[in-house]
Parts: sequence; structure tokens; C-alpha cells
Amino acid sequence: MEKKAVILLSGGLDSTTVLAIAKSEGYILHCLTFRYQQRHVREVEAALQIAKLYGAQKHNIIDIDLAQFGGSALTDQISVPKGRRLEEMEAAIPVTYVPARNTIFLAYALAWAEVLEAPEIFIGVNAVDYSGYPDCRPEYIKAFEAVANLALKKAVEGTMQITVRAPLLHLTKSEIIKYGVSLNVDYRLTHSCYDPLPDGHSCGSCDSCLLRKKGFQEAGFPDPGESEN
Amino acid sequence: MEKKAVILLSGGLDSTTVLAIAKSEGYILHCLTFRYQQRHVREVEAALQIAKLYGAQKHNIIDIDLAQFGGSALTDQISVPKGRRLEEMEAAIPVTYVPARNTIFLAYALAWAEVLEAPEIFIGVNAVDYSGYPDCRPEYIKAFEAVANLALKKAVEGTMQITVRAPLLHLTKSEIIKYGVSLNVDYRLTHSCYDPLPDGHSCGSCDSCLLRKKGFQEAGFPDPGESEN
Repeated sequence: MEKKAVILLSGGLDSTTVLAIAKSEGYILHCLTFRYQQRHVREVEAALQIAKLYGAQKHNIIDIDLAQFGGSALTDQISVPKGRRLEEMEAAIPVTYVPARNTIFLAYALAWAEVLEAPEIFIGVNAVDYSGYPDCRPEYIKAFEAVANLALKKAVEGTMQITVRAPLLHLTKSEIIKYGVSLNVDYRLTHSCYDPLPDGHSCGSCDSCLLRKKGFQEAGFPDPGESEN
Repeated sequence: MEKKAVILLSGGLDSTTVLAIAKSEGYILHCLTFRYQQRHVREVEAALQIAKLYGAQKHNIIDIDLAQFGGSALTDQISVPKGRRLEEMEAAIPVTYVPARNTIFLAYALAWAEVLEAPEIFIGVNAVDYSGYPDCRPEYIKAFEAVANLALKKAVEGTMQITVRAPLLHLTKSEIIKYGVSLNVDYRLTHSCYDPLPDGHSCGSCDSCLLRKKGFQEAGFPDPGESEN
């Protein structure tokens, strides 16, 4: 029996690990990536390469214009913070927060899932080892799943129930990396930096670079990716 | 004290009535309209004119590409049903259903609401007098509101709670029209047809035209709009 899944794939470390997990469980993979005027367009290029490598049945790239709403370091001209200690990161929801981002991503995933008759949506959110984003918490995921099953025709008619799978939800960054390594994820392909240098290399000092660095150190693996540069 | 609201405005009869309600309550109006490869692009033109008439502070038009997912008469090449009796319409969720449409619309509204610090989102959904759409039901709206208040930074920080206002939820079409007429809504500007003729006029026989016709008849007003054509 063919099992289909929609995988939200940013091209970063977490979503690539999630893709590998879905692959290891035998799903027919349908990858969904968003271009939202974020500064790190390199992530989208990474996503394209990764989806291809994993033999995705289809990969949709959706353009969404969050910039016209403003309000985030990833879409506006606000500076991405650099060189912060973990305690600083944990003190508040960071300026890199994008309003309603995961809700928009999951809403699109839901539309595609219904058309495909894919009952599983995979998302690489993570609530431990620092994550200040409210839409990465288990209670948020659970609430969205409830919306999904009230919104969709096929759910209401009883032919399909949506499950939002967030297999990294309770893992630390180093646990995620160990999990991925056990599935032979090639982290060289993944891109994490919030604010890459003009030559495309990672800055090495934004929250995302620092957390990645810490994750690899704790996992006991060298980072094969560019965050080492 | 300035009260801001985001209003989902399609340019149809229902959302225009909702805009008039928000205006009558003194909100600073921020209108949000989607272009989604639907056949009735005329609705978008109507929305532009209506938002201007109501003095909206801002009107954002968002392009979303639902067509690449397929699966709906409004975005695909499936035929829009014509000349159906009310019992036929009520028998099942119609083919004009668009997967996850209101979830996508509300997700964008949520992003804008947070940036604007607008705690109210108005949507013209309606659960009586025929509505087969699952994402127009009160339980859906309530579940989405729960998601909203778990997703947003400002909600989690306690500085803003989102309310999804659906003032037409429990009204019949004729009650909506009477309400709108009492607020001097000019229904001539609104557009309802799912499948307009090549000359832009309403077809007069799709579900939406027929329900509009029935609504005006029951309200005891002539329809000043093109559905009369």
C-alpha cells in the first residue's frame, strides 16, 4: 500500500533530517518549499538538491510574499543578531521570528495533502535545546492538527485524517544530528545560516550557525557543511 | 483609542457586508484579498473598488498559487454545476470547494494582524442557509482562533489576543442582505458568480448566483447587482 506524505523542506538541517525520516519509513515523498523573500535564498537551492537526492515524487516551490506585511529580521531590514550566548537566545522570542510562518506553511501543506490524499504532513519543528518560536511548540502542532481535521472535506467526510508529524519536536540539536547521521544524511548539503556572507558562505555567528556548531560538537561529529567555514 | 482590524475581502456579497459591519463598529480597516487563479478575477476588481469606497487604510492583494495543487472547480478545469435545486446543493460538499482555502487565507491574515497589532480578523463565512464548506463552520473558526493564539509571538507574550470575527456565521443569506442594506451596502458593486460569462456578467445559474437570487427575494429587495442580468 502506497503511503504518501507532504514534507515541509526548507533545506536546513532539521527539515532535511525529517525528510530522511519520512524516506526511512517508506513514504512517497512530496516536498514543499517556500520562497518568501528571506535573505537566505541559498536554502531554497539546497532544498532543490536535497529533494532530488531523496527521490521526491514531486517538489513544489511556492512563492509567498510575507515582506509586504513587514515585521521580521528574515524579511525586513532589521539586523540579524550575532555572537549571542545561549542564555541570550533563550531570554526572548528572537527578532528572526516571522509572524504566522508555520501556520502559512502548514496551511499550504494541508491543501496539497488533501489533493494528493496524503494523510501525513511532516514538519521539522523543534521545541527543545533553544527554540523561542511559539509555532514550534507541541501545543501549537496539536492545535493545527485539530484545525486540519475540521477544515478538509475529506476529513469531514471521513475518508482521510490528517496527522502532523513533528519527529524532532522533543530532540536536542545534537540528538537530531545523531539521528540524521544514523540515516546517512549528508549534512554538507544543508544550509542553516540566517545571514550568509556575500560569497554565500555561512556567517558562523548568527543564532542558527551557533546552534548548529554546538549541535555537532555535542553529537561528536565534525560538521561537513559550510557552517564550519 | 484606535482599533485596527484585518478584513478578508473577496469582493462578494458576504465579505462586503462584513466590511460594512467592521466599518460601522469604528475599526481602522485593513483589507486582504487573494488572487488564486480563480476563474472569477472580476471579484478582485470588485474588492479593489469596495475597499476604496470604505476608506480602507490599506488593501493588500496577495497572489497565491493554489492551481499547482489542483483539486477544485474554481482553480481546475472541472465544470461548475448549474441550475441545481437547493436540496442538491445541500446534499454534499460541492466541487467548488477549494482545499484548505480559508486556512490559507486566515494564516496570511494572522501574519498581517500581528505586524499591524490588529487583534481582530473579520471573515465572511456563513454556516446556515446552505453552506457545504467545512471551513465555514463555527467549530472550524473556533479551532483556528486557538491556533492563532498559540502561534503568534504577541499572543504568547500576552500583549495581543486574536479574535476571529465571523458576524455572518449564523445568518441566512436574506438576513445578511437585510443587515447589509441597513448599513447602506451598495450590493451593485459586489460580485458573486462562480462562472461569469465571457462579457463579465454573472451566469445566473451557478450555486452562488442562485443563492444570491433567493437571498434577495426572501429579503424583499431587488438585487441591484449583476446577478439580476
